[in-house]
Amino acid sequence: MPLVNDRLLRVLRGEPVDCTPLWVMRQAGRYLPEYRATRQRAGDFLTLCKTPELACEVTLQPLDRYALDAAILFSDILTVPDAMGLELSLEEGFGPRFAKPVRSRADIDALPIPDPGAELRYVTDAVSLIKRELKGRVPLIGFAGSPWTLATYMVEGQSSREFSRIKKLIYGDPAAAHALLDKVARATTLYLNAQLAAGADLVMLFDTWGGALSAAAYQEFSLAYMRAILEGLPAGVPAIVFTKGGGPWLESIAATGCAGVGLDWAVDIGDARRRLGDAVTLQGNLDPAIMLTTPEVVAAEARRVLDAMGAGGRHIFNLGHGITPEVPPEHVSVLVETVHDHSRQYHA
Amino acid sequence: MPLVNDRLLRVLRGEPVDCTPLWVMRQAGRYLPEYRATRQRAGDFLTLCKTPELACEVTLQPLDRYALDAAILFSDILTVPDAMGLELSLEEGFGPRFAKPVRSRADIDALPIPDPGAELRYVTDAVSLIKRELKGRVPLIGFAGSPWTLATYMVEGQSSREFSRIKKLIYGDPAAAHALLDKVARATTLYLNAQLAAGADLVMLFDTWGGALSAAAYQEFSLAYMRAILEGLPAGVPAIVFTKGGGPWLESIAATGCAGVGLDWAVDIGDARRRLGDAVTLQGNLDPAIMLTTPEVVAAEARRVLDAMGAGGRHIFNLGHGITPEVPPEHVSVLVETVHDHSRQYHA
Repeated sequence: MPLVNDRLLRVLRGEPVDCTPLWVMRQAGRYLPEYRATRQRAGDFLTLCKTPELACEVTLQPLDRYALDAAILFSDILTVPDAMGLELSLEEGFGPRFAKPVRSRADIDALPIPDPGAELRYVTDAVSLIKRELKGRVPLIGFAGSPWTLATYMVEGQSSREFSRIKKLIYGDPAAAHALLDKVARATTLYLNAQLAAGADLVMLFDTWGGALSAAAYQEFSLAYMRAILEGLPAGVPAIVFTKGGGPWLESIAATGCAGVGLDWAVDIGDARRRLGDAVTLQGNLDPAIMLTTPEVVAAEARRVLDAMGAGGRHIFNLGHGITPEVPPEHVSVLVETVHDHSRQYHA
Repeated sequence: MPLVNDRLLRVLRGEPVDCTPLWVMRQAGRYLPEYRATRQRAGDFLTLCKTPELACEVTLQPLDRYALDAAILFSDILTVPDAMGLELSLEEGFGPRFAKPVRSRADIDALPIPDPGAELRYVTDAVSLIKRELKGRVPLIGFAGSPWTLATYMVEGQSSREFSRIKKLIYGDPAAAHALLDKVARATTLYLNAQLAAGADLVMLFDTWGGALSAAAYQEFSLAYMRAILEGLPAGVPAIVFTKGGGPWLESIAATGCAGVGLDWAVDIGDARRRLGDAVTLQGNLDPAIMLTTPEVVAAEARRVLDAMGAGGRHIFNLGHGITPEVPPEHVSVLVETVHDHSRQYHA
């Protein structure tokens, strides 16, 4: 089915658009009352992820409210390690936790590579269902966590501030770290291919914790494995790579061959465009905290990002990280209208 | 009294040295058993800060163990807002908390600018005592938090991940934010001048949370106030400016006129040198997590930083952030020896 609104795919291919497309990281989330209602019906977050009908329902909720230019599969980056047998739980106020974290080389060697058609069937079923229910309105983004980011949770067993265990592993036993990352990258390649086969139009890699690494360690332990995943995707599928804190390394990220580079809000998007040129699409990068202020400030700061990007560029507007639960839903309306209206002049 | 070891000051002035000087952020800290003993005698962290004899004792402890090239005043960045009446407490496992956080324009307008000779006398007394006890062995570094970093704690009332309150303030009421930052900058200028008058040989500004800002907001709300402080210091006093997460903005930081730019570990120090040239000294930037590994890895990764910096550069070796409590003290010996030995070839 041809897409009714294909701005996002056009801009990722470097084709002209009438205005800058946008979507919002975590757009199906707790700031929406209808999301909170579905979540309550589901009982908990993991049940919501693992029930295709409910995942589909929340994926579509922000599309029904706002003129967003993409849907993104509702899921979690930790589905892959969960399917590898680490037993994920998500406790309110604590965050993710694995009952069986990876603690030794033997643990790494014993990790299975999940069959996305079996252990992760609930995800591909959700993708198929969402794709059907979208009826071609906008493209559907599939996604996965980066191998490095998944490995931090798998080895630490939970969220971390210092990353002591995983860093001891990469510096103290790099061969074991590479064995782990290679396995996770292979699992993720299969997983994203399965999402694409089920109907996703493009994919995004979330490298939430790449910014915790040194420049050299980022290349070796994070970027190399994202590149390997991209090389395992069908030719022509657009991929967006986002490393939070990756501002110093944008050139290397663009060189992976991705169609889009995600920017957090620390980067000036005009500088990023000067550094990378127009051979790649930039995605970002409003500070999510701005969504907490007032409609006037949201509009002014969104215009500032568009103005910094300037005319004729390849830009997908987004926040620099996920939208937070306290954001008033009407601020998202203001954001969507401002981005579409104010950007027309730059695509004339 | 002339300094016995003035490598650190020489490198900050761009003069030749025999090897790369080093010190370690948080070098007087919980990884040292003798520090834990003094801390226990003091009862709590704030008493340790506020008792000049004890602050002096822990300042000197790492110097007695290791051939470090500088001492740094033992204190806390939050002494300034505490002296402004916010009533600091530091709870084990929770972090800093202010009983009277800044919550309104009226709160901002009512903030006094403390007299360093009165409310902060315990700090200047500690500086004088440390300077006397150092007997000219190495230079003494005085320090303060950046106005932006102090303001985050003052407005949030405690540590924060999202910085919602302070960001609402800067975006929603920038005039009030500027009033607050201006006051904190003036207080900090007086404070650092008092530390210098009491005997500090140089000063450092810690901008721990500058990296949470967008590029534009960093310039306006953090860097501008650090520049104002530097302009209020006596001519010729070397200052080091460190913004964690400031990798994208190193050129702007160097342009403040500081003698040294602190680097976190996300930046490749060789890239930083190529960007900034040799008109400024670079300080950093080993990932602190490396200190948790093994003596061999500590030595190898320290050599990697020195090799990336290369020959003839202006470099103060340090970690990219503070040393953590779990580091084995013998790893610091390995670090100090490796840096001094391996760097000689680069200063021949």
